[in-house]
Amino acid sequence: MRLLFLGDVMGRAGREAVVDRLPSLIETYGFDFVVINGENASHGRGITEAHFELLREAGADVVTLGDHAFDQREIMTAIERHQTLVRPINLVPGAPGRGATLVTGRNGHQVLVINALGRVFMPPMDDPFRAVDKAIADCPLGQQADAIVVDFHAEATSEMQAMGQYLDGRVSLVVGTHTHIPTSDHRILKGGTALMSDAGMCGDYDSVIGMDSEEPLSRFLTGLASARFTPAEGEATLCGVAIETNPRSGLCEKVMPIRIGGTLSQSLPDFR
Amino acid sequence: MRLLFLGDVMGRAGREAVVDRLPSLIETYGFDFVVINGENASHGRGITEAHFELLREAGADVVTLGDHAFDQREIMTAIERHQTLVRPINLVPGAPGRGATLVTGRNGHQVLVINALGRVFMPPMDDPFRAVDKAIADCPLGQQADAIVVDFHAEATSEMQAMGQYLDGRVSLVVGTHTHIPTSDHRILKGGTALMSDAGMCGDYDSVIGMDSEEPLSRFLTGLASARFTPAEGEATLCGVAIETNPRSGLCEKVMPIRIGGTLSQSLPDFR
Amino acid sequence: MRLLFLGDVMGRAGREAVVDRLPSLIETYGFDFVVINGENASHGRGITEAHFELLREAGADVVTLGDHAFDQREIMTAIERHQTLVRPINLVPGAPGRGATLVTGRNGHQVLVINALGRVFMPPMDDPFRAVDKAIADCPLGQQADAIVVDFHAEATSEMQAMGQYLDGRVSLVVGTHTHIPTSDHRILKGGTALMSDAGMCGDYDSVIGMDSEEPLSRFLTGLASARFTPAEGEATLCGVAIETNPRSGLCEKVMPIRIGGTLSQSLPDFR
Amino acid sequence: MRLLFLGDVMGRAGREAVVDRLPSLIETYGFDFVVINGENASHGRGITEAHFELLREAGADVVTLGDHAFDQREIMTAIERHQTLVRPINLVPGAPGRGATLVTGRNGHQVLVINALGRVFMPPMDDPFRAVDKAIADCPLGQQADAIVVDFHAEATSEMQAMGQYLDGRVSLVVGTHTHIPTSDHRILKGGTALMSDAGMCGDYDSVIGMDSEEPLSRFLTGLASARFTPAEGEATLCGVAIETNPRSGLCEKVMPIRIGGTLSQSLPDFR
Ligand SMILES: [Fe+2]
Ligand SMILES: [Fe+2]
Ligand SMILES: [Fe+2]
Ligand SMILES: [Fe+2]
Ligand SMILES: [Fe+2]
Ligand SMILES: [Fe+2]
Ligand SMILES: [Fe+2]
Ligand SMILES: [Fe+2]
Repeated sequence: MRLLFLGDVMGRAGREAVVDRLPSLIETYGFDFVVINGENASHGRGITEAHFELLREAGADVVTLGDHAFDQREIMTAIERHQTLVRPINLVPGAPGRGATLVTGRNGHQVLVINALGRVFMPPMDDPFRAVDKAIADCPLGQQADAIVVDFHAEATSEMQAMGQYLDGRVSLVVGTHTHIPTSDHRILKGGTALMSDAGMCGDYDSVIGMDSEEPLSRFLTGLASARFTPAEGEATLCGVAIETNPRSGLCEKVMPIRIGGTLSQSLPDFR
Repeated sequence: MRLLFLGDVMGRAGREAVVDRLPSLIETYGFDFVVINGENASHGRGITEAHFELLREAGADVVTLGDHAFDQREIMTAIERHQTLVRPINLVPGAPGRGATLVTGRNGHQVLVINALGRVFMPPMDDPFRAVDKAIADCPLGQQADAIVVDFHAEATSEMQAMGQYLDGRVSLVVGTHTHIPTSDHRILKGGTALMSDAGMCGDYDSVIGMDSEEPLSRFLTGLASARFTPAEGEATLCGVAIETNPRSGLCEKVMPIRIGGTLSQSLPDFR
Repeated sequence: MRLLFLGDVMGRAGREAVVDRLPSLIETYGFDFVVINGENASHGRGITEAHFELLREAGADVVTLGDHAFDQREIMTAIERHQTLVRPINLVPGAPGRGATLVTGRNGHQVLVINALGRVFMPPMDDPFRAVDKAIADCPLGQQADAIVVDFHAEATSEMQAMGQYLDGRVSLVVGTHTHIPTSDHRILKGGTALMSDAGMCGDYDSVIGMDSEEPLSRFLTGLASARFTPAEGEATLCGVAIETNPRSGLCEKVMPIRIGGTLSQSLPDFR
Repeated sequence: MRLLFLGDVMGRAGREAVVDRLPSLIETYGFDFVVINGENASHGRGITEAHFELLREAGADVVTLGDHAFDQREIMTAIERHQTLVRPINLVPGAPGRGATLVTGRNGHQVLVINALGRVFMPPMDDPFRAVDKAIADCPLGQQADAIVVDFHAEATSEMQAMGQYLDGRVSLVVGTHTHIPTSDHRILKGGTALMSDAGMCGDYDSVIGMDSEEPLSRFLTGLASARFTPAEGEATLCGVAIETNPRSGLCEKVMPIRIGGTLSQSLPDFR
C-alpha cells in the first residue's frame, strides 16, 4: 500500500497548501492512506475542531498532534468524538483522547497510527519507548495492522534515531515531527522499517520555523519579547514522506521525501 | 567560486570516507575551497592534531569544531599553531585558538570561515549573534572576503533559522552542524545567503547519530549507562553541502546537498 | 553599616507584607540601606512603576529584578527614569535600564547594587561572572563603594556557590534570589563576603513558590495547563537577610537570615 | 516517634562527620529511626557497598540515593542484597533494587521510606507523583506504616513544593535532597506533613556544593573542563532535619533543621 505522511501544518499558509494540493496528490499517486500532523494548524498553536475537519476533508485519514496538542482548549473535549485525531500516547493516564488509533483506509487497509513525544530537551513526559512498544504489541504489524506509522514528535536527533532502531522490523514508518525542518536521512533500516528524522512542516519557510521572522529574530538578538509570534503567510512548502509497504509484511519497500511548493527544493514521489 | 562543506567527521569511519573520497571530489567538481567540521574526528570526541593534519592533507582548507572542540586536550595547545583550525567564536575571551580565520584557497580566493555555538538546549555560552556580527564587520563579504562560511553548531532549528535570516545578504553560506542528521532545507535566502540547517555528519548512519546503537538505545530504554559510547564502524556517508558563489558579490548562486556512500540516499553536486 | 535585603516580592501578599513591616524594621534595627527584589511584585509577573514606587516609599533604597524584569512592559520605559531600579546586568548591550547602580543611603553610605542572572537551567544570557567583575572593578569596595550587594538571580546552587567564591573579598554580600525558597547556608566566606544561596521570597508559603497551589499541582499531575497561575493570597513571610559591614573595608561582619510573619519559622536580626 | 534525616553524604568529609557524630546524636535525642541520603558518599559519585555498610553501622536504618545512584557500578548488583538501600522509585521497571522499603526501627516502629527523582531540569524519568502515590496506597500511613519519609531528590523548588502539597496528610515528611544547600522553609503543612525543600548535604561547605571550588569555578569562568571534580576535604557540616510524629496518626508534630559542625550556622534538635 501507498502511504503519505505530511509534517506539522503551520497556520493558514499550511492549511491552504494542504487543501489545495492534497486531493490531487492522493489521486495522482494513488495513496491508500494519509496521515497529517496538525499540531500547529490553528494560528501556529494547536488545532481547532473546524481545522481538524478541514484536514480530514482534504484527505487526511488520521491527524496527529504533539506538544501543542491542546493549545486550542476546545480540542480537549472535541478529541473524544474523533477516532481519527491522535494525541501523544505518553501523556499521563486519563488525558483526553487517544495516543494510537487503528483506522480503515479508503481501500480497506487497516493502519495503526501512533503519536508519541520525545523527552530530550522537552518537558517531562512518560516513557515513549515503553508506550509505543505496548501499542504495537496490542496490534502487531502483519496481523491486525497492514501498516503502522509512528509520528515521533521529538527535538533530539539521538532520541529519534534510537526510536527508529528500537522499532526496526516492527512498524512500517518512524517519522519525526516538531523541528519543522525536513531531514534527508530517509532510509529503510535493516529490519524493513522506514526512518526519517523529521518530515518538515507544511508552512512558509521564509520564516523562523514557520513563524514570521521578525519577532523570533528580535528575541534572539535582545533576549526580550516584543510581541506574539505570528505564522508567516507566504506560500507554504508541503513537506513529508511517502512510503510503499509490502502487502503481506507491512514493512517498507520504498521511502521518498515530499517537498512541494514554496521556497524549498522540490521532491515528488516516484513509485516506479 | 565553488565551495564544499562537510559535516561532523565521526571517528574512523568518517575519517576514512574523507580520505578516500575528498581528493577526487575536489578534482571532479573543481572545488576552490573545502571546510570540514572535525569535532568528532577522534573516537567521536574532539580531534587530535594528527587527525586534523589528516583532514588537511585530504583537502580541507579549514577545519571547524563545536561543543566537543577540546575533548582531546592536546588540541588546546596545538590549536595555537594552526591558522586553519577554528573553534567556536563565542567561547570566553582568552580561550585557546581563534573563532574565525581568513584563509587563501588553492585558487587564490580569500575565504573567511567562522565557527559559532548555538545556545538553545546547549551549555551557557557568549552570544553567537553578536560574535558573528563582529567578525563579519571586521572582514566584509565582497571586500576582504571573497566568500564567508558560517558553521553554526546548534541544536535548535529555531536558532539556526534565525541565524540564517540575521546574516542574509552578508555571508555566502550559513550551515548547521551538531545534530549529525542532514536536512533538506538548503536554499538561497532573499538576500543571497545559502542556508542549510544541518550538513549531516561524515559517519556511519546505521547507528544513533554516529555511535554504535547498542549503548545509546540501552540508555534510552533503561535510563542507565552500561558502557561508553563507541563510534559505529560501518561505511560512512559523506554529508555536506556545495555552493557556487558570485565572484564579485560573494553571495550564493547555487546550493546543493552532498550525500555520498553509506546508507543514505545519494546526492552529488551539479554545477551546470 | 547595617543592610537589609528582601527576596522576590510576590504579588499583593508580598507587597502588603513589605508595606506593613518594613518601616518599623528599619527603625527598630537601624538599617542604613535596604534592597528589595521586586521581579514578582505585580501579579507575580514583573513590576509596574506604581508598585516600584510603593516599595520605595516603604523603605527600599534600591529595587532589583530578575528573569521577569520586563513582564510588565511599561517598565521598559519607566526604568530609564529610575536610578534606583536595577535589572540584570548581563542582558544584551542596549537593553533598557541599568544592571548596577551606586546609591547614597539615608545615612550617607555609598552602596553599589548589582543584579545578575544565572545561566544554568535558565535562558541564554551574557556571562554573569565577567559582567559582575567589570562592575566591581569600576567601583571597588572600600573605595567608591562603602558596601556592594550582588543579587544573583539564579536557579542552580552550583552557580550560586561559584559566584560567591568568585567574589569573596570583593563585595559585601552575594545573595541569591529566584527559587523563592530561603536557604540556611548564610555565612561569611574566608575573604569576608557574606553568602546566602537564596533569600527566599516575600510571599505566601502556603503555595507552590508563591502561586496558588491548585494550578501548579494540576500541571505536575496532568502535564496540561488548565488556567493561569495566580499568586497565593495568604499572609506572606517576609524573607531576606541582614548584614553588618565593617565601616572601612566594607566586608561583612555579621549575617543573619530574616523570616517574619506567615507560615515559616521566624528569624529576626540580632545585631548585638 | 523521633526521626532523623541527613542529606547527601559527600565524600570522605561527609562520611567522617556521619561516623563521628551520628551515634551520639541518636543517643542524645533518642531517635527511633535514621535515614541518610548516600548518593555522593564515595568520592562524590554514588556509593560503594562498603560505604553503605559504614553508614548503616553508624546508625542509618535506611540509605537513600538519587541521580548518582549507580555511579559506583558495583552497587547495581549489591543493592539486590540490601532491603535498607533504596534507589529512586521512578526509574524504569526492572531497574535494580527497590524504590521504597518498609523497615522496622530499633524501637519496633514500621517506617516506609521512599526515594524519588524530580524531572524539572533533570534527565527524563517516570512520573514521580504517580510512583509515590502508588507506594503510599500500598502501605498507608497510620496502618502498615508508623511513619512515611519521602526523599524527593529534585532540582526545582516548584516541583518540590508541589510534591509536598500533593502528599500533605498522607506522609510524615517530604524532604528534598540534591541541591546540597539546606533550606529554611521547614514547616508542617495544613494536613500534618512536614516539608523541607532541601536537607542540605553532609559535606564541606567551603566548596562549590561539596566539590573543591577550584575546578567548578574554573569551568564557570572559562566554559572548559581542566580536571575532574574532587570532593572538598574540610570539616563537614552534618545537614538534615529532625521530626517528631504522632504515634497514632504518623503525622508530624515537630520539625527542626539540623546543622552540626563545619562552616554553617549551627542548629540542633529541640524536642521539648
Ligand atoms: Fe510543530
Ligand atoms: Fe511541536
Ligand atoms: Fe558533532
Ligand atoms: Fe556537537
Ligand atoms: Fe522570582
Ligand atoms: Fe526569577
Ligand atoms: Fe547529591
Ligand atoms: Fe543528586
